Amino acid sequence: MKRKVLIIGIGAGNPDYVTIQAVNALNQVDVFFIPDKGAEKEQLSRIRREICERFITAPHYRMVDFETPLREKPSSTYRTSVTDWHDKMEATYAHLLMEELGDDECGAFLVWGDPSLYDSTIRILDRLNAKGNFELDYDVIPGISSIQALTAKHKVVLNRIGESITITTGRKLAEGFPNNSESVIVMLDGEGAFKAIDEDVDIYWGAYIGTEDEILMSGKLRDVVDDIERLRNVARAQKGWIMDTYLLKRSYDEIGE
Amino acid sequence: MKRKVLIIGIGAGNPDYVTIQAVNALNQVDVFFIPDKGAEKEQLSRIRREICERFITAPHYRMVDFETPLREKPSSTYRTSVTDWHDKMEATYAHLLMEELGDDECGAFLVWGDPSLYDSTIRILDRLNAKGNFELDYDVIPGISSIQALTAKHKVVLNRIGESITITTGRKLAEGFPNNSESVIVMLDGEGAFKAIDEDVDIYWGAYIGTEDEILMSGKLRDVVDDIERLRNVARAQKGWIMDTYLLKRSYDEIGE
Repeated sequence: MKRKVLIIGIGAGNPDYVTIQAVNALNQVDVFFIPDKGAEKEQLSRIRREICERFITAPHYRMVDFETPLREKPSSTYRTSVTDWHDKMEATYAHLLMEELGDDECGAFLVWGDPSLYDSTIRILDRLNAKGNFELDYDVIPGISSIQALTAKHKVVLNRIGESITITTGRKLAEGFPNNSESVIVMLDGEGAFKAIDEDVDIYWGAYIGTEDEILMSGKLRDVVDDIERLRNVARAQKGWIMDTYLLKRSYDEIGE
Repeated sequence: MKRKVLIIGIGAGNPDYVTIQAVNALNQVDVFFIPDKGAEKEQLSRIRREICERFITAPHYRMVDFETPLREKPSSTYRTSVTDWHDKMEATYAHLLMEELGDDECGAFLVWGDPSLYDSTIRILDRLNAKGNFELDYDVIPGISSIQALTAKHKVVLNRIGESITITTGRKLAEGFPNNSESVIVMLDGEGAFKAIDEDVDIYWGAYIGTEDEILMSGKLRDVVDDIERLRNVARAQKGWIMDTYLLKRSYDEIGE
């Protein structure tokens, strides 16, 4: 018998980002698996619960909290440390699906933003399926990513006309602004890699996007870089954690071209 | 007095991709501006109307159809021809907002997928605002893009672990697979630029994604390239138009690394 699991993208912060498809999916779920990522993620956990309470019309579900294994500091390579972490996650997920989900029940993971973007859930379920200890029947429900929430709030288009877009991490941006893109979206940037960019670019920055604590700032990077750094430090000090995303676009006037 | 306009992302094909935020927005609208992009887009126009009928609870809206100017074949450069086209679109939109929208009314453009991705609506309204003939107060509502619908259907993650993603056009892919990305998403590819790629990559392809006519195919590019080309030709011949998107990912086993 196949275990049914839904990977549901719940959007980036604002419960109104939830899609009709996700609402329908939420209403099929018997067991929600809720990760506990420590105190700094309490707010995210609260929003997950709010979404369930608001959109599930005939509640018969239960919540199962689980501890996510700590990710170790990169040892040899970034990818190796991620893969070690995936091994631990895989064991955790296998336990959840074997022990906490009945044969005829539907389980779900609620993924912040979109499940296809820098999230491990699909990959972990794929690996469990490949191992073949038990069969999973799983579906993926897309969600509004923080990139889309960011651009909507700034009322800005991702791409320069006809040009490419790069989505990358802070670690990668530290190697330089890509030479084949006019637009770069940076996610997972703990260190503020934008500070080292000296190209003529505009920045559209946002933290805690979609939530009540949202902060937005935009302008020529060189004009606002210090302001953004200050905002980041203040916000991180106040809340104990930060989650931010930004778009860098090469500066030129598209109207005149 | 400022004219209020909403740019509403309605997702890629499936009306269930509409978000709660978009449903709330739809219910505020007095006038929907519906582009007429010729016979091949009849289906898209129909889905727009279906979304309005399904999600608007107290209908008091009217629909205003408008002809979108034809985009000319590229003359000197691609960007110039797009800019000429923007000039015409701008004149069209100015006319709509001045003549078809009352001072105290709310107008809306329903954008396929997400308004921040290869769509001109934000740019055109920005240009109208910059000209200052009349003031616009507009908001952007994000929507599920065809990229997200594609990856959800294929149950695949966009990024290789910790790596960058490039979003690009068929015209750009024809210059080669980017050397700084492990994953490339291709949109707006009329010619099938994937046929010229000879790298060792997996392809996740989809046409008419999210609609009843959806076609999906995936595999090693070299194994499925002919099948995809055949499917594209048959589908285009039957429907008279095609709209497809695909993800190319360098082939390697992430588990073993």
